[in-house]
Amino acid sequence: MARHPQHLEREITNLKEKILSLGASVEASVQRAARSLTQRDSVLALKVIDSDFEIDQMEVVVEEECLKILALHQPVANDLRLIIAILKINNDLERIGDLAVNIAERAVYLSTHDKVDLPFDFQDMAEKTQIMLKGSLDALVNRDVKLAREVCLADDEVDLMNREVFTLIEDEIKKDPTHMNSLIQLLSASRYLERVADHATNIAEDVIYMVEGEIIRHFNKISERTSKFSKR
Amino acid sequence: MARHPQHLEREITNLKEKILSLGASVEASVQRAARSLTQRDSVLALKVIDSDFEIDQMEVVVEEECLKILALHQPVANDLRLIIAILKINNDLERIGDLAVNIAERAVYLSTHDKVDLPFDFQDMAEKTQIMLKGSLDALVNRDVKLAREVCLADDEVDLMNREVFTLIEDEIKKDPTHMNSLIQLLSASRYLERVADHATNIAEDVIYMVEGEIIRHFNKISERTSKFSKR
Repeated sequence: MARHPQHLEREITNLKEKILSLGASVEASVQRAARSLTQRDSVLALKVIDSDFEIDQMEVVVEEECLKILALHQPVANDLRLIIAILKINNDLERIGDLAVNIAERAVYLSTHDKVDLPFDFQDMAEKTQIMLKGSLDALVNRDVKLAREVCLADDEVDLMNREVFTLIEDEIKKDPTHMNSLIQLLSASRYLERVADHATNIAEDVIYMVEGEIIRHFNKISERTSKFSKR
Repeated sequence: MARHPQHLEREITNLKEKILSLGASVEASVQRAARSLTQRDSVLALKVIDSDFEIDQMEVVVEEECLKILALHQPVANDLRLIIAILKINNDLERIGDLAVNIAERAVYLSTHDKVDLPFDFQDMAEKTQIMLKGSLDALVNRDVKLAREVCLADDEVDLMNREVFTLIEDEIKKDPTHMNSLIQLLSASRYLERVADHATNIAEDVIYMVEGEIIRHFNKISERTSKFSKR
């Protein structure tokens, strides 16, 4: 089997471009989904839903490329670690794309049902989530562990925001259950945003692992254990 | 770099044992979490929460083994596909473990708060989900594509059950919002069960992919597109 280092290098560059291009599509999708939610824009929401097909196709291509490189070039050390990280990040990106669709579906519901307003800045939550996602991808490109760690820390903020939404919606339904359905759709949207932030954190952790060869995610989880019983 | 086919074979057997052992632990965790929920058993729920640490450790070990085999033996064709499938299944199993913890946390809440009863058989939903998980792991061991496809089909049933819970809880809160908090905890538990079923489906799809080298998951998704707008 032929193995030329310069071929491997070229294919890895190619693979990086593909995963970044997928990352950019997913970022755009989350941004649109968030805007369709905050502006109750069902046309934009439908665009998000339609374009998910392309994201799915891109994920399949990236996975096939990773397998091809592993089979043909049998990379070791840093190259191997990079490809495994990309395989996992690819998976996370595809799931973020699905979550953008889920958010857009809530936006479609909310744009066609009764108007509910919550004293909560979804725009702000969506922006924080997008900054995390962008940060995780920048960390990947630049092998920037410091940035990746910042992304991991920011996850707590988004978690807190999601809990705040939960409490606000609870209060709202108690006061007046008339708009319960729409409020529960908003709660779902908030949860989906929080899960986007979780996947961005996964990506950042994979970058750290790739660079430092250290599996940090379960240590993070252990330190979170103290807050495990608070409701989400 | 030394590469002995018989070493590779031995390490793959070893790896398979490890992933199945992780699978068995995760299955047990889901089963306990479901029982703690239906029987409002907080002691059992706390056991689930405590034992998640071991599941996390096992996932780390499996991932390290996969990377070691890839680096040392540089497997190709079927072996490579198997190892990539195991890497992904490992990830799904760890997430199922987390979901079992989430369900157990809801069980703790419900065991210490007001009694709510829903005309819905959570035991049945939990059993269906467990059968899917067990099926996906059996399909992995036996490379059983037929069984894997059955798991994928069963996912629709669990989805429907989750929607039924949503509607029932909606009605219940409308009738009497007093127990809303507990009802929303039940709704969360139902969603977590549904996500366990999703991950079991991912595992089954990875088995099919491993055996047939065919990426089916996005085709499934496209055929689901028609039901995309129904609420969850």
